Amino acid sequence: MSDHRPILLANRAFYVAFGSADFAAMDALWAQRSPVSCVHPGWGALFGREQVMRSWKAILGNARPTDIVFSNPAVQRLEDIALVLCTERVFASELCATNTFVLEDGAWKMVHHHASPVTTSEPRHIVTMPVGLN
Amino acid sequence: MSDHRPILLANRAFYVAFGSADFAAMDALWAQRSPVSCVHPGWGALFGREQVMRSWKAILGNARPTDIVFSNPAVQRLEDIALVLCTERVFASELCATNTFVLEDGAWKMVHHHASPVTTSEPRHIVTMPVGLN
Repeated sequence: MSDHRPILLANRAFYVAFGSADFAAMDALWAQRSPVSCVHPGWGALFGREQVMRSWKAILGNARPTDIVFSNPAVQRLEDIALVLCTERVFASELCATNTFVLEDGAWKMVHHHASPVTTSEPRHIVTMPVGLN
Repeated sequence: MSDHRPILLANRAFYVAFGSADFAAMDALWAQRSPVSCVHPGWGALFGREQVMRSWKAILGNARPTDIVFSNPAVQRLEDIALVLCTERVFASELCATNTFVLEDGAWKMVHHHASPVTTSEPRHIVTMPVGLN
């Protein structure tokens, strides 16, 4: 768990930036050197820092800030890469997110975000891995 | 491009196994030692080999095989981890997939699959990274 704490904090920072529409914070938490990509709910894939950050600028620039909370983060560690899967609740809709982070200069930086609506009652959130702070 | 060829072949093997409902092939292409997870369209997250493979057994066991093709694979390489983002067409619906692979004993093995429907006409498939074989 303590091993995963910095990763979970990076994941939380993403949702804090998202929910508070803080573009500077959002920009800072994405990787600078590693390639990045993003799949917003219902969208196709965006590649590269320019396109990804342009999408965040548009989303965070909405007149109405996004009402978003996350829960049940689970860390999947792969060497110096970490996936955090978690549940998002956005304006009362439930989504499932995969957030991928890489270690850059000792800090966990986001390289990929993929969020999609949960529409079935199939088994979900069957978290068998260590979960951590929200 | 040549650097990405084994990754793209692993990605293609996933869709061949999926489309031909070949559970043994699907089982073989998922990592054995690394942690795995999966987000099917509309589902929440599944964790661990047992849950993930149980879901594939159910999906591939459907009476009607899945009519699935993929296109526009783009590789995002992060050390010995690789993400492949691509478009899926499933029974005429368009989805966006993130497929994550790890090197295990020199072979690229799947550790995560996240697929979600594309429902907007927002910018998509703006592939600015090298793309490869289908």
